[in-house]
Amino acid sequence: MHGAGIDAMLDSLAGIAPDLGRFAVEFPYGDILCRPGLDLKSREIATVAALTALGNAPVQLSGHISMALNVGCTREEIVEVITQMAVYAGFPAALNGMEVAKAVFSERDGKGLS
Amino acid sequence: MHGAGIDAMLDSLAGIAPDLGRFAVEFPYGDILCRPGLDLKSREIATVAALTALGNAPVQLSGHISMALNVGCTREEIVEVITQMAVYAGFPAALNGMEVAKAVFSERDGKGLS
Amino acid sequence: MHGAGIDAMLDSLAGIAPDLGRFAVEFPYGDILCRPGLDLKSREIATVAALTALGNAPVQLSGHISMALNVGCTREEIVEVITQMAVYAGFPAALNGMEVAKAVFSERDGKGLS
Amino acid sequence: MHGAGIDAMLDSLAGIAPDLGRFAVEFPYGDILCRPGLDLKSREIATVAALTALGNAPVQLSGHISMALNVGCTREEIVEVITQMAVYAGFPAALNGMEVAKAVFSERDGKGLS
Amino acid sequence: MHGAGIDAMLDSLAGIAPDLGRFAVEFPYGDILCRPGLDLKSREIATVAALTALGNAPVQLSGHISMALNVGCTREEIVEVITQMAVYAGFPAALNGMEVAKAVFSERDGKGLS
Amino acid sequence: MHGAGIDAMLDSLAGIAPDLGRFAVEFPYGDILCRPGLDLKSREIATVAALTALGNAPVQLSGHISMALNVGCTREEIVEVITQMAVYAGFPAALNGMEVAKAVFSERDGKGLS
Repeated sequence: MHGAGIDAMLDSLAGIAPDLGRFAVEFPYGDILCRPGLDLKSREIATVAALTALGNAPVQLSGHISMALNVGCTREEIVEVITQMAVYAGFPAALNGMEVAKAVFSERDGKGLS
Repeated sequence: MHGAGIDAMLDSLAGIAPDLGRFAVEFPYGDILCRPGLDLKSREIATVAALTALGNAPVQLSGHISMALNVGCTREEIVEVITQMAVYAGFPAALNGMEVAKAVFSERDGKGLS
Repeated sequence: MHGAGIDAMLDSLAGIAPDLGRFAVEFPYGDILCRPGLDLKSREIATVAALTALGNAPVQLSGHISMALNVGCTREEIVEVITQMAVYAGFPAALNGMEVAKAVFSERDGKGLS
Repeated sequence: MHGAGIDAMLDSLAGIAPDLGRFAVEFPYGDILCRPGLDLKSREIATVAALTALGNAPVQLSGHISMALNVGCTREEIVEVITQMAVYAGFPAALNGMEVAKAVFSERDGKGLS
Repeated sequence: MHGAGIDAMLDSLAGIAPDLGRFAVEFPYGDILCRPGLDLKSREIATVAALTALGNAPVQLSGHISMALNVGCTREEIVEVITQMAVYAGFPAALNGMEVAKAVFSERDGKGLS
Repeated sequence: MHGAGIDAMLDSLAGIAPDLGRFAVEFPYGDILCRPGLDLKSREIATVAALTALGNAPVQLSGHISMALNVGCTREEIVEVITQMAVYAGFPAALNGMEVAKAVFSERDGKGLS
C-alpha cells in the first residue's frame, strides 16, 4: 500500500478499530517488508501475485500495485505478474486483477506518475 | 516446476489425460514464462507467493520452490516470500508453505543442491 | 441474518428461485441455529468469523453482524472477532470485514440500535 | 462468455494487456471448449457451477450464464445448478450466484432472449 | 457420493456427529439431487467441476467422480470436466483433481466397473 | 494451538524460519488473544469456525480444537460449530473439519483429557 493508501486505511479504521489499523501497519511494514533477505521490489511482486490469485481484496491489490510502481516495478512487470496468475489461479482471477491494474494506471496517468 | 517435476507430471497424466499434461506445459512454459517483460526469478517469486497464499497445491508449490532455486533465488529469499504471506493470507497458509519449503530444502541437501 | 435481511432475501429470490430461499431459511434457521449444544451468541460469532475469513460474501456478513448484535454481542466483540481474522486469513480479509462492520454500525446508529 | 462478453473483454484489455485477452480466448475457446468428449451444454454447466462455488468472479459468471442459455440450457437448469452449489460451497455462494443469474435473466428479458 | 461412500461417511460420523451425517444425506440427496429441472448426470458434472475448482475436498471429489460414472458419465467426460477447470481455477486445481480421478478409475478397474 | 502444538511448530521452524515462528507466537498470542473485549473461549470458537470454513489448514485446526477444549469449550460445542459451517462453507468443509475433530477427541481420550 502506498502512503496515501495507508493514511486512508487508518482514517477509515480510526473510529471503529484503531488497533487493527495499527497492527496492519506495524506487522507488514514494521516487521516484514523492512527485513533484509528480499528486496522491496520482489516483495511487492509477491504481494501483487498473491492478491491477484486470492481474488477477494481489490482495494489492497490496488494499493500494492501502486506501491510496486513506487518502488521500481514497471507497468509491464505488473502486467506480466497478473497475466501469469491465469496459469495458477485461473483466467477470471487474472482478468479481474488486470481490471484493478488498469484503474491504477489510469489514476496515475492523471497524476503524471509512472 | 523443475525438469524432473514436469517429467513426473507428464508420466502421471500419460494414461489418463495426456492433453492436460500438454496444456500444463505449453501454456505456462511455452506461452508465459518465456515472455520478456519479467525476469524468470521474479516470475518464480510470484508463483511461490501465489501458491503459498492459495494453500491447496503443495505438490506444485514444491516444484516451484525448486525451480525458483534453480533460476537463482536463494533459500533465504524463498523463506522471506513465504513468511510475507502471513500478512496477506494468514499464518496457517505461511506455516504450511514453510513446511513444503523445509521438505524441498532437505531433499536438495541430500543431492548437494543449493 | 436479521429478520429484515431474511425478508429481503426471500423477496429477491421469489421470482427466480423460491426453493433456494426456502432452503436458505429452513436449513440454517430450522435445522442448525436452534440446536441445543451451542448458544446463539456463540453461533453468530462463529458465522461472523467464517464469513470474514472466506471474504466473498459481504451481504451475508452484514446480515450476520446485525444478527450477532441482536442476540447480545457487543460491537466491541464484533470488532475483536474480525480483528482476530487477520491472524488466520490475512489482513485484507480482516480489513474488508471491518469495512462491512463499519457500515452496519453506522446504519444501526441511524436507527438508534446498539 | 457469449460473443458480446468476449468483445467487451478484448476491448477492455486492448490498451493494457492484449496478450492476456488473446490467451483468454485461445486457451478456453480454441483449446478446451471445442474438444470432443463433452458437449458444450455440459461444459457450460460445469463452468457455471465452478464460478458460483469459487464466488469471486461475478462478471465471468454472468457471461457464462448467458453462454449456457445460448447453447441450450434452460433458465430452470441454471437455477438448479446454482441452488445445488449451496451443498458444496455453502449458502452465501449460492445466494450470490443467484443474484448474478437474476440480473442476466432480467437483461435477457429486455432483449427478448430465452 | 456413491452408496459405499455415504455408508462410510455415516459410519465415521456415528460416534461424534450423527446429525451432521443425517444433514449431509437429507439435504443433498433428499432435497436437492432428486429435484426435477436438471438431470442427475448434469448434477454430477456440476459437482465434479465445483469440487475440482475449490480444491480442498479430495475425498468428496472422489465420491462424486464415482457417482458420476454410476449415473452414466463416461470417464472421458470426467477427464474433460476436470481439464476444463484449468481455465477457471488454474492448472494446480485441475492437476490435483486429475490425480483424484486417476485413483478412482484405478480402483474401479480393480472392481470391473466402468 | 495448545502449548504442545506451539512447541512443535517452533521446533519445526527453528532450522529454517525462526522469525516466522516468533511472529506466529507474538502476533496471535502476544497481540490478539490476550486483548480484552472478547473472552478466550469465544476467540477459539471463532478460530475453529474460520479454519473449518477455509478448509486448508488441518494441522492448525487440530491445534485450535485442542486449545478450545483447554479453555472451556465442550466437545459438543466444537461439534456444533463445525456442523454449522455446512451452512456457510458447504458440506465438504464441515465433513473434513469433523474428521479433524474426531482425531483430536480420540487423541485426548487416550490422554484422559476432556
